[in-house]
Amino acid sequence: MEFSSKLLENAVNEMSQLPGIGKRTALRLMLHLLRQPKEQTSDLSKALSNMRNDIKLCKNCNNISDNDLCEICANPNRLEDIVCVVEDIRDVMAIENTSSFRGLYHVLGGKISPMDGIGPNDLNIQPLVKKVKSGKITELIFALGSTMEGDTTNFYIYKQIQEFKVKTSTIARGISVGNELEYTDEVTLGRSIINRIPFEASLKS
Amino acid sequence: MEFSSKLLENAVNEMSQLPGIGKRTALRLMLHLLRQPKEQTSDLSKALSNMRNDIKLCKNCNNISDNDLCEICANPNRLEDIVCVVEDIRDVMAIENTSSFRGLYHVLGGKISPMDGIGPNDLNIQPLVKKVKSGKITELIFALGSTMEGDTTNFYIYKQIQEFKVKTSTIARGISVGNELEYTDEVTLGRSIINRIPFEASLKS
Repeated sequence: MEFSSKLLENAVNEMSQLPGIGKRTALRLMLHLLRQPKEQTSDLSKALSNMRNDIKLCKNCNNISDNDLCEICANPNRLEDIVCVVEDIRDVMAIENTSSFRGLYHVLGGKISPMDGIGPNDLNIQPLVKKVKSGKITELIFALGSTMEGDTTNFYIYKQIQEFKVKTSTIARGISVGNELEYTDEVTLGRSIINRIPFEASLKS
Repeated sequence: MEFSSKLLENAVNEMSQLPGIGKRTALRLMLHLLRQPKEQTSDLSKALSNMRNDIKLCKNCNNISDNDLCEICANPNRLEDIVCVVEDIRDVMAIENTSSFRGLYHVLGGKISPMDGIGPNDLNIQPLVKKVKSGKITELIFALGSTMEGDTTNFYIYKQIQEFKVKTSTIARGISVGNELEYTDEVTLGRSIINRIPFEASLKS
């Protein structure tokens, strides 16, 4: 691509470094910005640099936050002894939306994935082990995605904390609410039969 | 969506104002930026505001440029009397890539589209009429997309300049190079038969 303007070329190049945005899309976005009032671009530009420079990670759970402690960890009404282990802030947001969890989170910042060169030391695992060791946690809920990487990460953490005799659980895998059996894949359906729950318990949830 | 950080929320909101980028995509992009070195975000942020604040439109052709005259208009080797009318800079880049045009461009900045509320006065049409009126142009090539809006715009400009007796042409519509007849739509195929060219002429291109 040959540009008639270095300024435009530079902006397109920077924008197309974002995942999923190619040069053509970036050019389309830049032409859109050029048609809009200057304020929109300056607002975007400021919001980006403010976010990157001023954002913090919660000292306790490693979640993205504006303060040293995130709103969830700072909330005195949350149960401090139940900790839900998640990959990133998107999972925290997804679980918070369900309003079915009253404990705290622990954000790993990723999953163990040798294919992507991510090992246990690249993740926020040691602080979690320390937390468990301190004895303040009664239950650890593994809430990573149901993938090979998620299962590996669960198992690695489990091995690290096994000796401390904390109760561990993992979120249930089974058929989605509203789904028909015939459209569910066999692994999921098989697991949902093996991990069946008492009918009385199902009435409560 | 509830965010644990106002800074992140603000950045996601600004980003999702760009066309084709929703809140989820914007969040994914922001989390990517947070994992990268701070320089990437500051480079992006600077490139955006520099582009929006310092970019110019060529005085002659209205193309995006870093200077008062764009590189094409400033090039003494281009033929000044042949002008190609296009919608925006992407079309200029596309035609320049073919290396088959040696004249100048005139960028309209859009097409007449009553559905989108774009009338002739919102486009860079009057300066084109003036240019034609001055008598320096011998041929005007209409190179807008082959759509209802493109045809309307062509016809509007044609009506405006008709009295000045300038030669006008429009880019050929026909089957794409490398295409089979059976996969070509009938309107295009019909036009390519009506507008057939001498076989000897086709040998040269």
